[in-house]
Amino acid sequence: MAPAITLALDAMGGDNAPDQVVRGAALARERFPEIRFVFFGDEARISPLLNRHPTVGACSTIRHTAEIIADADKPSRALRRGARSSMRLAIDSVRDAEAQGAVSGGNTGALMAMAKFVLKTLPNIDRPAIAGLFPTVKGECTMLDLGANIDCSATTLVQFAVMGAAFARALGGIERPRVALLNVGSEELKGHEALRSAAQVLRERQLPLEFIGYVEGNDVLAGAADVVVTDGFTGNVALKTVEGTAKLYSTFLAKAFRQSLLSRLGYLLARPALNALRARVDPRAYNGAMFVGLNGVVVKSHGSSDAMGFASAIGVAVDMVRGDISARIVADLKQFGSTGAEAPASVAVN
Amino acid sequence: MAPAITLALDAMGGDNAPDQVVRGAALARERFPEIRFVFFGDEARISPLLNRHPTVGACSTIRHTAEIIADADKPSRALRRGARSSMRLAIDSVRDAEAQGAVSGGNTGALMAMAKFVLKTLPNIDRPAIAGLFPTVKGECTMLDLGANIDCSATTLVQFAVMGAAFARALGGIERPRVALLNVGSEELKGHEALRSAAQVLRERQLPLEFIGYVEGNDVLAGAADVVVTDGFTGNVALKTVEGTAKLYSTFLAKAFRQSLLSRLGYLLARPALNALRARVDPRAYNGAMFVGLNGVVVKSHGSSDAMGFASAIGVAVDMVRGDISARIVADLKQFGSTGAEAPASVAVN
Repeated sequence: MAPAITLALDAMGGDNAPDQVVRGAALARERFPEIRFVFFGDEARISPLLNRHPTVGACSTIRHTAEIIADADKPSRALRRGARSSMRLAIDSVRDAEAQGAVSGGNTGALMAMAKFVLKTLPNIDRPAIAGLFPTVKGECTMLDLGANIDCSATTLVQFAVMGAAFARALGGIERPRVALLNVGSEELKGHEALRSAAQVLRERQLPLEFIGYVEGNDVLAGAADVVVTDGFTGNVALKTVEGTAKLYSTFLAKAFRQSLLSRLGYLLARPALNALRARVDPRAYNGAMFVGLNGVVVKSHGSSDAMGFASAIGVAVDMVRGDISARIVADLKQFGSTGAEAPASVAVN
Repeated sequence: MAPAITLALDAMGGDNAPDQVVRGAALARERFPEIRFVFFGDEARISPLLNRHPTVGACSTIRHTAEIIADADKPSRALRRGARSSMRLAIDSVRDAEAQGAVSGGNTGALMAMAKFVLKTLPNIDRPAIAGLFPTVKGECTMLDLGANIDCSATTLVQFAVMGAAFARALGGIERPRVALLNVGSEELKGHEALRSAAQVLRERQLPLEFIGYVEGNDVLAGAADVVVTDGFTGNVALKTVEGTAKLYSTFLAKAFRQSLLSRLGYLLARPALNALRARVDPRAYNGAMFVGLNGVVVKSHGSSDAMGFASAIGVAVDMVRGDISARIVADLKQFGSTGAEAPASVAVN
């Protein structure tokens, strides 16, 4: 069996907590029998659930707390007042090396604020980012930032590129990931100043990635790049737009199949193939936003996700722990630092 | 028959010009027998095409020019050097009231730069925008800006809201359009300063629209608003992301149907319904980006669109001309101006 991994679960975060958290843990354990869990939250509610899922109960402990961060809480308030909350205690346990990673379905802003405050950012990283995996025509693509930073400087974007490449190497097994900056098409309009400066740095420096320049919104899911870097505002809009478009398409497709007797029959015949398609674009399979750039693994599960979605988020945390992602980012950034001052190889000196 | 409308067509713009332009005109004329066309471009190439489409030939004239704006031309260069180009002459003819609108499948940046320079912006409008229609679960939604302005001030966003509402009234027949600002979800991160200021103005002023606050990327295609306002960078990314996601979904769907004999049979049975679905999400039916805020109608057709797509863009121009969109925006902005200085009704004076 793989080496044991202990994860801290915020049992009270998300719309269906703690029920879906425990059920998600049970599903995840089928896939990763080496995980142990520490549940943070209301013992009176968690304990009966663990009794109902004895495989989870046998590898878990409960840390009781009655405090919960509400979805409506402002991050600043959560940080000030939530020191005994289930979310905060889960993060604290990562800092204290009691757990190797934390997973929460709670308030994103509060989770990021607490994670930053408690775990601190990695050396040479100014700001942590939120990264996610997207299905593409060719496989998968890592995109960051999905919402942690509204405005990003060129330096921040370059750091995101290095972090994203470290992810693609650690989790996707891609030795030299193709990294792109998300931009718009029209020549005149091309990009904010920060984008142009980041592109220049990525082009000139020797980095453990292959910078392929700019991509547009339609290129992301076409699989043009392994890693797509953008600011948190644009990334969040893109993420949600993918969700909305997929939902619209599914709605229209379901309506089309209900249109006539023949189309209903057609649906029945094609159902196994369509179910495979559904599994391939199932947002639950892509649940689990990765907080990157921190001294520790923190994964955000979608607030409305069910047990299967929460299990995916746990899987992401396991991958991050196994991939030793923080150490890899630190090493890559050191390499970046050491080559940063050199002249680009293509520039002649004389 | 409806009153005659004359449209100026840039016969040389787009990947498949002038062939698709003439064929698109022929398709459009079946729907709008009242249109007349002026084709700008290479007479030696256009003339034989008109002979092949006599219904178009009979209602069209050709203005010969050998100059063409290339897709790679920078807008500034196009503006300086392209005074005799097919694109520029088409716009000039709108200024000279020879045509009531222009349609081009050429270089977007050059088209916008020329349109701004030649037609000028409407009174009280600082910057023109690019608007487009999106299919939603509930019907359609107008989104702007889709790429004309990378950065937008609060004032610009408010002007976009008023222009977008005028569109929804004129083209969608919605008396009091629900207008929203595109934003991100997380509470802490909510929006750039410009978004927050624009929201405040839209909330407080009496405008001919219903401001419903912020929406996220997934809300757009869910039909949460009739008009979604955003800066041109974010709007362009959202537009292209919708395209990319729809394409991914179609690719996966086609693969699913090819998976087994049963699924192939299922496809055959459901084909009429699936074709109806395809028509509903067909990007060609949504082709035609509207330049708004100018003294004149200009529509951009997608560079790679076929005849059907170009016909849709012509249809958009017809709708804009018939809806007298510029006059409506001017009237709405006057109303806005007159109420702008008043205290909001909800604020007590004592």
